[in-house]
Amino acid sequence: MPGFVPKDPRFEARVRASFAQQRVMDTIGASLTRVAPGEIVIELPFREDLTQQHGFVHAGIVTTIADSACGYAALSLMAPEAAVLTVEYKVSLLAPARGERLVARGRVLKPGRTLTVCWADVAAHDRGAGRPVATMLATLMAVHDRADVQAGT
Amino acid sequence: MPGFVPKDPRFEARVRASFAQQRVMDTIGASLTRVAPGEIVIELPFREDLTQQHGFVHAGIVTTIADSACGYAALSLMAPEAAVLTVEYKVSLLAPARGERLVARGRVLKPGRTLTVCWADVAAHDRGAGRPVATMLATLMAVHDRADVQAGT
Amino acid sequence: MPGFVPKDPRFEARVRASFAQQRVMDTIGASLTRVAPGEIVIELPFREDLTQQHGFVHAGIVTTIADSACGYAALSLMAPEAAVLTVEYKVSLLAPARGERLVARGRVLKPGRTLTVCWADVAAHDRGAGRPVATMLATLMAVHDRADVQAGT
Amino acid sequence: MPGFVPKDPRFEARVRASFAQQRVMDTIGASLTRVAPGEIVIELPFREDLTQQHGFVHAGIVTTIADSACGYAALSLMAPEAAVLTVEYKVSLLAPARGERLVARGRVLKPGRTLTVCWADVAAHDRGAGRPVATMLATLMAVHDRADVQAGT
Repeated sequence: MPGFVPKDPRFEARVRASFAQQRVMDTIGASLTRVAPGEIVIELPFREDLTQQHGFVHAGIVTTIADSACGYAALSLMAPEAAVLTVEYKVSLLAPARGERLVARGRVLKPGRTLTVCWADVAAHDRGAGRPVATMLATLMAVHDRADVQAGT
Repeated sequence: MPGFVPKDPRFEARVRASFAQQRVMDTIGASLTRVAPGEIVIELPFREDLTQQHGFVHAGIVTTIADSACGYAALSLMAPEAAVLTVEYKVSLLAPARGERLVARGRVLKPGRTLTVCWADVAAHDRGAGRPVATMLATLMAVHDRADVQAGT
Repeated sequence: MPGFVPKDPRFEARVRASFAQQRVMDTIGASLTRVAPGEIVIELPFREDLTQQHGFVHAGIVTTIADSACGYAALSLMAPEAAVLTVEYKVSLLAPARGERLVARGRVLKPGRTLTVCWADVAAHDRGAGRPVATMLATLMAVHDRADVQAGT
Repeated sequence: MPGFVPKDPRFEARVRASFAQQRVMDTIGASLTRVAPGEIVIELPFREDLTQQHGFVHAGIVTTIADSACGYAALSLMAPEAAVLTVEYKVSLLAPARGERLVARGRVLKPGRTLTVCWADVAAHDRGAGRPVATMLATLMAVHDRADVQAGT
């Protein structure tokens, strides 16, 4: 993967400000631990109140952090005035999401003027090395007009 | 879509008991409002603490109710001793997820001994008719051995 | 699904002309059998030279007709000067693709100024009723500038 | 990605024999150029009779070689008696598929007893370096009984 050059030198502040507005991240206890051009890491400590019937973190919660990691990876390369919308994603679940914390790493695969393709891997960490639990392949859209954000894609 | 005949006459009790164990449903405030053979409805009242940066319900939370709707639609047709695991899903986001409540309807498209294909549509409801906000196409797996649940697919 | 009103009254001629330029359709022997606003049917008689190792039509060929059915369903609702590009799709394979012919029906799920979401079902027909073999969920893009067609999304 | 140890020391002969039975590969002119444990490369020289309306190779044909690359990557790690079926895939199209030849590289992301997750990237090559045109994320299934191959997943 090439090194990406952000169009907006203040991309990190912009990503962090937007993440701070995602109220769901606070609700589930996720935090933004890395912001680089085209690459974002979000971490989520395990919590029992996020689990499904077998005691693993629910796939939808795994998807929540993967989607935001992809979205902000895309946003980090967009022009200063752009907002980002998720168009679609596909998630393959590789193993049960348990462990001390989940780490979602989103990366830009192909940036574009309108559409950006990203992927994310989510790993479960206990003490040492991570164990892959999910992979996402996603399409994100740059939106330049507030009315378009309200209307969707 | 054909009418499905459940293998387990007690499918409804089984689905409801499993849903009650999904602690994340309680955390986000979702409830199970319909359990039929091959069809499940889950509802989620809007809450500000589930939103992303534009004030809409986060796509991952939309996915959470869609995934469980698909999973339980699949489980409703499985043998009594089977557990269900999500293998993968793809979600297309059609419009911003706002409104008084979200309603996810999961349906079995193709049941199978090992794998079941389901789709879900999620609609936003205010007063009257729903407005589609997302569509999911998902693969679910029947697991007959507790050790396999721990190991994943 | 609602009835769609095409922006271009000459949509059928436009779809048929574009289909005629898809040389691969001639190569595999597929034909366009229905063109309606937001709905397209493409048929493919079984041919041994399109099969995979078990003697079924290869999933990629099933995808070929499903993708064109989705693409032209989207194009049928676009403005006269627009071209259509496939952004992405997900295909679930439901049963082996064998039988006298395959019939792919593509439908618009959500039209949009830039992006259109479509789905297609592919059925295998012998004598009578069809048997579902695949389902596609796809994102298509309207492109208004020839240079953008060359550049991709 | 870890180095995979094949269960069947004769995996290469098995993959090559199966590929030779995929009659569609001969029809489109694709060849198998690399067989390693968990990694397969398939190449397709450009041909005008495989194109869509803008003169690029049709997305379904790109998918055909990506699907087989994923399928054989999965099969290369399966037990000697297993057959492989494609359960589903998602393809993101990154750029128009033109150039002298397309090269699809399929890799196993997560092997499993029943299900294997693979991804493939497809690049267009002219003289020198490749240019990415598509990415696939796929689920494959090991089938141990001939009757199950006929029945599908």
